[in-house]
Amino acid sequence: MEGSKMMSNEEVLTSKLLHRSLGHAPNVVERAQGAYLYLQDGTKVLDGCGGAAVISVGHSNPEVIKAVSDQLNRVAYIHTGDYTTSVSEELANKLIEKYEGKISKVYFVNSGSEANEAAVKLVTQYFYEQGKTSKVHFISRKQSYHGNCLSGLSLSGHKARRLPYENIISSQFHQVGPAFEYRYKLDVETSDEYVQRLATELENEILEIGPENVAAFFAETVVGATTACVTAPKGYFKAIQKVCNKYDVLLVLDEIMCGSGRTGTFFAWEQEGIVPDITTAGKALGGGYSPLSAVFISPKVIEGLRSGTSSFNNGHTYQSFALSSAAGLAIQRIIERDGLLSNVLEMGAYLEEKLKQEVLPLKIVGDIRGRGLFWGIEFVKDKKTLETFDTSLKVGYKIHDFIWNRGVGVYPGFGTNDGFSGDHILIAPSFDVTKEQIDIIVDAVSKGIADFL
Amino acid sequence: MEGSKMMSNEEVLTSKLLHRSLGHAPNVVERAQGAYLYLQDGTKVLDGCGGAAVISVGHSNPEVIKAVSDQLNRVAYIHTGDYTTSVSEELANKLIEKYEGKISKVYFVNSGSEANEAAVKLVTQYFYEQGKTSKVHFISRKQSYHGNCLSGLSLSGHKARRLPYENIISSQFHQVGPAFEYRYKLDVETSDEYVQRLATELENEILEIGPENVAAFFAETVVGATTACVTAPKGYFKAIQKVCNKYDVLLVLDEIMCGSGRTGTFFAWEQEGIVPDITTAGKALGGGYSPLSAVFISPKVIEGLRSGTSSFNNGHTYQSFALSSAAGLAIQRIIERDGLLSNVLEMGAYLEEKLKQEVLPLKIVGDIRGRGLFWGIEFVKDKKTLETFDTSLKVGYKIHDFIWNRGVGVYPGFGTNDGFSGDHILIAPSFDVTKEQIDIIVDAVSKGIADFL
Repeated sequence: MEGSKMMSNEEVLTSKLLHRSLGHAPNVVERAQGAYLYLQDGTKVLDGCGGAAVISVGHSNPEVIKAVSDQLNRVAYIHTGDYTTSVSEELANKLIEKYEGKISKVYFVNSGSEANEAAVKLVTQYFYEQGKTSKVHFISRKQSYHGNCLSGLSLSGHKARRLPYENIISSQFHQVGPAFEYRYKLDVETSDEYVQRLATELENEILEIGPENVAAFFAETVVGATTACVTAPKGYFKAIQKVCNKYDVLLVLDEIMCGSGRTGTFFAWEQEGIVPDITTAGKALGGGYSPLSAVFISPKVIEGLRSGTSSFNNGHTYQSFALSSAAGLAIQRIIERDGLLSNVLEMGAYLEEKLKQEVLPLKIVGDIRGRGLFWGIEFVKDKKTLETFDTSLKVGYKIHDFIWNRGVGVYPGFGTNDGFSGDHILIAPSFDVTKEQIDIIVDAVSKGIADFL
Repeated sequence: MEGSKMMSNEEVLTSKLLHRSLGHAPNVVERAQGAYLYLQDGTKVLDGCGGAAVISVGHSNPEVIKAVSDQLNRVAYIHTGDYTTSVSEELANKLIEKYEGKISKVYFVNSGSEANEAAVKLVTQYFYEQGKTSKVHFISRKQSYHGNCLSGLSLSGHKARRLPYENIISSQFHQVGPAFEYRYKLDVETSDEYVQRLATELENEILEIGPENVAAFFAETVVGATTACVTAPKGYFKAIQKVCNKYDVLLVLDEIMCGSGRTGTFFAWEQEGIVPDITTAGKALGGGYSPLSAVFISPKVIEGLRSGTSSFNNGHTYQSFALSSAAGLAIQRIIERDGLLSNVLEMGAYLEEKLKQEVLPLKIVGDIRGRGLFWGIEFVKDKKTLETFDTSLKVGYKIHDFIWNRGVGVYPGFGTNDGFSGDHILIAPSFDVTKEQIDIIVDAVSKGIADFL
């Protein structure tokens, strides 16, 4: 079989593949190795964001490739109605062994979108099994993102991503305010008072919909691409969980982007002092080697299922896919053996320090925030008023281009403020990033922002 | 890295992996090769259904494995905001080159569920771009299946699969009768009259909802797992397309299960004399090597997008995934080089003949139907009245077990009649199946049914 061919810009643009835009040809990547992407035109790019925070053990890691190739030579696909594979069983056991009593089972699917759809259905079925068939309303947060499929899109509070689809989104999905101190904590409030206000807002929303109608509250533990690595104020998730428990509302934490080690602990919620009823994870879990996402399910929800039909009514062709499990298992073994979660914490602290020293002082940098190896830089027109740039300027994308021209890839976004206005970039390198690589990333980021100015 | 370990039934049942049922341990597959699965307990099973009609060039095909491994050593994951890979571009070009003027672009995602979600959103955005924002109602067919995510589930007319979720399904999704002659054509009707009745039913449904509100009609060209390989009566799709065109309703054909060569032509609709506005495909396209599904988009829909924002507002992490594209491209090259579509037609005809000779005469076999290498066997209590078995007997599943005990895997299903009652099995071997393998399959099927009796 042939290898890949050189393609001109024109050939890419007129190819039969639907790209993100019909008017813009993406760059052809020839190969990827470790922290670097090599384009067919000779350009070398340091991948400072792992695409969309996907890369966890570098690109083309030979151990992961070997594990996947070996698995392919044994068995890749089986139908889970009749069969299983030991590699999927083993990955499930490995991921959960440390969380005895907190997590009972895990369900593997391809994408984060699928994982959140499954979570919505699992919550619905959990209440259905108990005869609580009116519990079919969901609450999430403004400026959130929970996926592309219809449940996830309905949960998502990012207005621009909902734009053409508002008329197919169900009215059973509701949104409350995000836990976003930089923009939404009032000057007259303490952080605790802000938390209390958000908890009260959620409680009022539940009461307005009727507790007998509310199934779950969905939130990203650390918000990802929509607001750029926003961590919640201390005590927020404890306060939220208390409200959920009071009204028999399940707490579902979406850790597709922030989980699987990205913040220095496998689950981001380990740093919040709570345990959710359901967690979804993805991206870094499969690390770019195969689409692997997961739904982690608490004993309470599994027992709810067991006392009913004992069968989650949601079957995917590629659920528990052996190839993806092999990739996921190899990645977990590398992370464990090489102590990569410690590296996430150490290099994360170094990255934070460098960003606050070298980037935060820049004229248009309003805020630097994040945790572990997951950092957001928000751009503002005015540092005092937090005024955003005109959306037509596409500031985040332009700054991304300037940084890219300096050889470093970062992840741009917009709608930071309210789903339409506001601009940011994300930095989310591989868990094995080095000090030297962070120096290169931060240098390109600060110079790229200066180029824009 | 270690290989896989032996696991006891008890270890599988109490593992942390959520299986299809909490009370039933699936069999551990140790390896799969060609047409065979080898279980860890020594059992060898001839895979007569490719899991869920997924396998197209056998299990562990060395050429596909090499293509995937080579791709992994170059580049697996890139973010499609900035990048592309020549392997994804090449697969897109290869799949569509023969359909100039009929298909303009293809969009790759992981699962069939994702492909149908994307189709629903693409249809919605197509009309949104034209300011037709009220066109957000969808019509599909009873006893259909279009996926697990919320749009697909809402389209799906299979009642049992919707059961716990009826209260989260949007009222913007509507169903008309299936094109299912064996059960729903009246004795007094000719086939043409039945087609006309179905076309009129669709037209009346559009008029009732209001043509200005209806976006698309979704149908499986050959219905898959819910009613077991039901082909439409001659002229049905032409009549349906005429109605759709009359009211500016897009025709979307779901070929996740029946497409990608399964019926002997790449698209099943090539045998219906029509071209839909959008086609979705999956399963055999990635052949079990990687989750690969596709949305094939007509020039009309692409031009609609181009005259608007020029950008489909639906971004997946693993869209255009290079690893999946490598698998898909290798599969297409093998199918082409080895003339496997001819084999699908020849072996399909042989399978049909054998099934009609040896299986149809059996007491509880009501109907044998299908096309290419996609055949359904429907079981009935009474061949004259078509009365179904009591659902609690789980006849399809039990017969599947008897056949499995004779060394052949088939795909069981229920709800054939109305979404709850009715039982069937599916036979859908790999495109390179041999006469000898078909003999073994049909022998096990007829003996397995006899074992049940």
